[in-house]
Amino acid sequence: MGDSLGKLFVVTSFGESHGRCIGVVVDGCPAGLPLDAGDIQRDVDRRRPAAGAGSTARDEEDKVEILSGVFNGMTTGAPVCLLVWNRDVQSAEYEKTRFVPRPGHADYTAFVKYGGFNDFRGGGRFSGRITAGFVMAGAVARKLLATAGIDVLAHTVEIGGIRAQPKTADEIKQNVDQNPFKTADLEAAVAMGDAVEKARQEGDSVGGIIEGIALNVPAGLGEPVFDTLEGELAKALFAIPAVKGVEFGSGFSASVKRGSENNDPFTASGGEVITLTNNAGGILGGISNGMPIVVRAAIKPTPSIARTQQSVDMKKVRRASLVIKGRHDACIVPRAVPVVESMMAITLADLALRAGILPKVIR
Amino acid sequence: MGDSLGKLFVVTSFGESHGRCIGVVVDGCPAGLPLDAGDIQRDVDRRRPAAGAGSTARDEEDKVEILSGVFNGMTTGAPVCLLVWNRDVQSAEYEKTRFVPRPGHADYTAFVKYGGFNDFRGGGRFSGRITAGFVMAGAVARKLLATAGIDVLAHTVEIGGIRAQPKTADEIKQNVDQNPFKTADLEAAVAMGDAVEKARQEGDSVGGIIEGIALNVPAGLGEPVFDTLEGELAKALFAIPAVKGVEFGSGFSASVKRGSENNDPFTASGGEVITLTNNAGGILGGISNGMPIVVRAAIKPTPSIARTQQSVDMKKVRRASLVIKGRHDACIVPRAVPVVESMMAITLADLALRAGILPKVIR
Amino acid sequence: MGDSLGKLFVVTSFGESHGRCIGVVVDGCPAGLPLDAGDIQRDVDRRRPAAGAGSTARDEEDKVEILSGVFNGMTTGAPVCLLVWNRDVQSAEYEKTRFVPRPGHADYTAFVKYGGFNDFRGGGRFSGRITAGFVMAGAVARKLLATAGIDVLAHTVEIGGIRAQPKTADEIKQNVDQNPFKTADLEAAVAMGDAVEKARQEGDSVGGIIEGIALNVPAGLGEPVFDTLEGELAKALFAIPAVKGVEFGSGFSASVKRGSENNDPFTASGGEVITLTNNAGGILGGISNGMPIVVRAAIKPTPSIARTQQSVDMKKVRRASLVIKGRHDACIVPRAVPVVESMMAITLADLALRAGILPKVIR
Amino acid sequence: MGDSLGKLFVVTSFGESHGRCIGVVVDGCPAGLPLDAGDIQRDVDRRRPAAGAGSTARDEEDKVEILSGVFNGMTTGAPVCLLVWNRDVQSAEYEKTRFVPRPGHADYTAFVKYGGFNDFRGGGRFSGRITAGFVMAGAVARKLLATAGIDVLAHTVEIGGIRAQPKTADEIKQNVDQNPFKTADLEAAVAMGDAVEKARQEGDSVGGIIEGIALNVPAGLGEPVFDTLEGELAKALFAIPAVKGVEFGSGFSASVKRGSENNDPFTASGGEVITLTNNAGGILGGISNGMPIVVRAAIKPTPSIARTQQSVDMKKVRRASLVIKGRHDACIVPRAVPVVESMMAITLADLALRAGILPKVIR
Repeated sequence: MGDSLGKLFVVTSFGESHGRCIGVVVDGCPAGLPLDAGDIQRDVDRRRPAAGAGSTARDEEDKVEILSGVFNGMTTGAPVCLLVWNRDVQSAEYEKTRFVPRPGHADYTAFVKYGGFNDFRGGGRFSGRITAGFVMAGAVARKLLATAGIDVLAHTVEIGGIRAQPKTADEIKQNVDQNPFKTADLEAAVAMGDAVEKARQEGDSVGGIIEGIALNVPAGLGEPVFDTLEGELAKALFAIPAVKGVEFGSGFSASVKRGSENNDPFTASGGEVITLTNNAGGILGGISNGMPIVVRAAIKPTPSIARTQQSVDMKKVRRASLVIKGRHDACIVPRAVPVVESMMAITLADLALRAGILPKVIR
Repeated sequence: MGDSLGKLFVVTSFGESHGRCIGVVVDGCPAGLPLDAGDIQRDVDRRRPAAGAGSTARDEEDKVEILSGVFNGMTTGAPVCLLVWNRDVQSAEYEKTRFVPRPGHADYTAFVKYGGFNDFRGGGRFSGRITAGFVMAGAVARKLLATAGIDVLAHTVEIGGIRAQPKTADEIKQNVDQNPFKTADLEAAVAMGDAVEKARQEGDSVGGIIEGIALNVPAGLGEPVFDTLEGELAKALFAIPAVKGVEFGSGFSASVKRGSENNDPFTASGGEVITLTNNAGGILGGISNGMPIVVRAAIKPTPSIARTQQSVDMKKVRRASLVIKGRHDACIVPRAVPVVESMMAITLADLALRAGILPKVIR
Repeated sequence: MGDSLGKLFVVTSFGESHGRCIGVVVDGCPAGLPLDAGDIQRDVDRRRPAAGAGSTARDEEDKVEILSGVFNGMTTGAPVCLLVWNRDVQSAEYEKTRFVPRPGHADYTAFVKYGGFNDFRGGGRFSGRITAGFVMAGAVARKLLATAGIDVLAHTVEIGGIRAQPKTADEIKQNVDQNPFKTADLEAAVAMGDAVEKARQEGDSVGGIIEGIALNVPAGLGEPVFDTLEGELAKALFAIPAVKGVEFGSGFSASVKRGSENNDPFTASGGEVITLTNNAGGILGGISNGMPIVVRAAIKPTPSIARTQQSVDMKKVRRASLVIKGRHDACIVPRAVPVVESMMAITLADLALRAGILPKVIR
Repeated sequence: MGDSLGKLFVVTSFGESHGRCIGVVVDGCPAGLPLDAGDIQRDVDRRRPAAGAGSTARDEEDKVEILSGVFNGMTTGAPVCLLVWNRDVQSAEYEKTRFVPRPGHADYTAFVKYGGFNDFRGGGRFSGRITAGFVMAGAVARKLLATAGIDVLAHTVEIGGIRAQPKTADEIKQNVDQNPFKTADLEAAVAMGDAVEKARQEGDSVGGIIEGIALNVPAGLGEPVFDTLEGELAKALFAIPAVKGVEFGSGFSASVKRGSENNDPFTASGGEVITLTNNAGGILGGISNGMPIVVRAAIKPTPSIARTQQSVDMKKVRRASLVIKGRHDACIVPRAVPVVESMMAITLADLALRAGILPKVIR
């Protein structure tokens, strides 16, 4: 339960890390949107680890297949099922430590919730690999949003304590795929590399912060009081494993500001109402105000580390020590960047449909 | 649209700041829960401004009425409608500045989204007053959770840059209602008072951070991959006006930690699996792990300030300056504390029902 | 649970027969719709028993109140709460037979489902009186649909075995409120009156069939494969107590027709595609085809009858005989006519919004 | 949109008649349910046309594949994706008549709703073939219900005007798969065969009625006032192409009965409350009463007939005549029998979970 997201643009996720496939059904995409596997493949490929980015070498040669909902290269209005088949799966190792949960992972909670019937191999349903499905759905959403001129991007703003300098949207677009850390600050990228490498050598890992930005979002998206733009985006972002915080605009730093600093003054420009600053992150009262949507997600350091850790034997309920074998991601932040984009796009597509901003048929 | 929250414990909000009433319908509360208006009144009263807490003097003598769903002092399984009538309403002032949106408020976005038909008086549907309905629903949720031993509390951990020292759950319970800032650190309360008073004298306002804690939550709440415990709690908390960030456990600070620091080692204690630290905030893989749920919400400084602000005339789309008349809250953080508790309780009640942890009839 | 209906036009019902009120919250009504209590009152009044129609004499002087969502005579986009207060309540009689369920009523199932905590007075949540809330919500839906030219009507086509002759939509509109049985066939009305009176004298009751018709529904409403127009209408109609069957177009009689008879040939008329017959009841593949939507609902005979009936004592689980005291409706069919209209209107409003046929703001 | 059904047992359908596959995702199935492809295959095979039953000869050698949610032969609590690949597809014929809609089919409404982008080949998303997915999901639901002793069956009660004699549940189980018409009355089966054959020879088709029965359903399923057991079952059944009417218990015939006839007297038997008759079809007030659930669905005659029919050219909006080439089902009633079972099982599984009657983990 809980594997569907959205009200009018409904994304249903399925598949496990070491099962047969990772898939997603996108229901509610308007008919008439040009869509081919290549569009989606590009986004899925961006999720793959870059050389030197501190990620595992698992050969994820994911080839996207469209199983339904597309005819003659266009969406039909029927549900779009997208899928990548799993391969290169080494499961034997997981069996050995089946009852010794990895700290920071879902092993323990999944065991309790599903009575031990969960597919534990590679984290099963809780693996970061699940996000391949999110990215496939996000690719559809992004194409849909593009028909209304809406653009969604994301970039790493911090890794291992190294902060990137602020950059413009254009710089972000230009730089984000030019370095393994998906940051727009190419100098910071070097320092991030050092931080990740140091952590790896010490058998450890680092986390970071990703910023997502949506441009050209018209005013009016968001359905308060409960389905606010912040609330829906946050819910979607917390579906990404390792996200432990979400903030909009000035976010937590707003708590130390004065109202006179944090309020964004309105002005008129070119016949439009805009704000001079964007501490609100483009959202007032849970509704987009026409300024860029700005959100940041805190990514915890990868829980899989090479060091021996203290755990328990869940069956005997007694202490056990754990060494996680195999390759480890010392930093998964860059791989989460396209996932942040995807979850934003999915949410914005749903709220744009709910606000009546996108048509039911693209012509 | 978007005024209902939850899947099995469904809260529907209605009412406006200067309309006839603020109300809420709670659908899905199990039958057999003892409930009277007094239970709910206590929580609603906690939302009222305390003397010296920097809040407006509007006489909110809200008397809770139960309109349905309770019979012979017990819930019946039918929807529970709860309501407070509005009074003491001064609306004329709002008419004057109807087309000049207050910076930091929803005036502009509501005007755009609802075509100018929204009830703008006192912020209408976007007023903090709406949260009186959240608190009424939260009171029902808290009583329901209490039948399973689950306890939800919240306290101010920062106002105007003044941080409270960490306190135990018992200290929080004991101290939170003993000072106007609803903090557990009585010394910090004094400094918070100074900070708020200084802001007020300068025609300004301050924000802060509220921490919510849920105790005795069994492992297993949360429905990944999308309806995670973090995601559902965050969505609910972002429904509180002025919340701009939400984090769990070590949250944003996790981004600068190493995996070896941030992972919570498991251990066995009294036949139960627990963790030695709680950087996860009681949530792993989107599911409660049996440790206390810990969440923090960033509250932006109250946007209504006494100073002249730059705005626009929305009809003529040209600049206008704005002075907000009347009383102002220099700090609404303490008033939001019971609202944070309420939104947590509502979400936990829904997820506990979804997890099958609460019965359909309380006997 | 289960007291909300619809996805974009969301109706939440609350209240009990002998509680404080009957109410409804309508969320998702576009802003800018002119609405006053009088509009709704007219529909609610039509639900009241007409003299001579075989209904109870309970003085239901229901005065509709708008509690929220309307400002300056227009909907605001916020949830509309509508309410009638209960009065004239005689509850003592119900206490006596509390544990002896009335055959054909929900007394037994409610007792089991809600563990005996349900408000049993007057049927509580299962009383026909609940439909006053449906009618209030339906009145909003009808006004909304009228902005798109859509018209919903209903009439009695059978009572106590007396069939009305087919009539045109205009005749239905003209005649339906001119006789106590809300039929368009004024001759049949006389025979229906005899049938009802005969049943009443024999301490018995009769049922019947109501036909609902929606005119000017554009092609395209309905969201297959599951949220079909038939499925959503049927679900809404089965919420009316006593409805035990729903059919569209030729309905059950289609089962004895040949395909060549039952298929509706297409033709072109005035630049539009229409069908020459309407055995489909205006619905093909779960989607409206532009022809009138035609649905019929079977209403079982009122279960409350004057005769002694066989029942059980639910607590002791042994046989008991039951005499239902007080006034009885020998036929509730006419009172259900405006309720059928209302449930149709609510469903069509929701599906029209989902199909993007109604705007988010009425201008 | 509208391709997901259920609240806790959520079925999402995808795939088209002549696309790559027909699939379904079942989310919310409790963990620990033994499930293998063979279980599901048996039900899918029952949907295939029997020799002599008047159905098309398309070689539907559908082999069920489980793509997710099952591990070591047991459900894991994760979404179960099930799929059959399409083959034997002849699409060229459909291209020729693309703009000439078949009377009684969804060709016209799909064209309008999806702007002509719908996959029209073989009816696309509106083909009866879609129900292969319903049957796969239904197979999971039936296995789940069986853990609580609930048994769902269906049988043909009328074809082409030939009524089957009433039979016991045991007779139904024994006979239904012993004849090509899936009726329990083996004599009627012969007459049905004649009626179908006669229609076929005349280039025509016949419809019929299917009865579904659920045994051992405990009292308490159904969530009034809107999510009634009747309403949810009806909505699910109307998702089956060709269903145009649904009735429960005495259904439409209740409209000609007296209350004293139609009320089911209660009695006590073996410490349980039962009713002496079952005119209510096992449902009172929208909630199961412990008696067998009895529902009947009217199936219209197959719209694809061999005769020349009157239609239009949708592009030019002018009359056109149509001859549907290829094989035709003179009667699809028997093939819909397992689909009725499936939709009932899916709905009952969802409502049983909502009522708390099924556990979250099967142990």
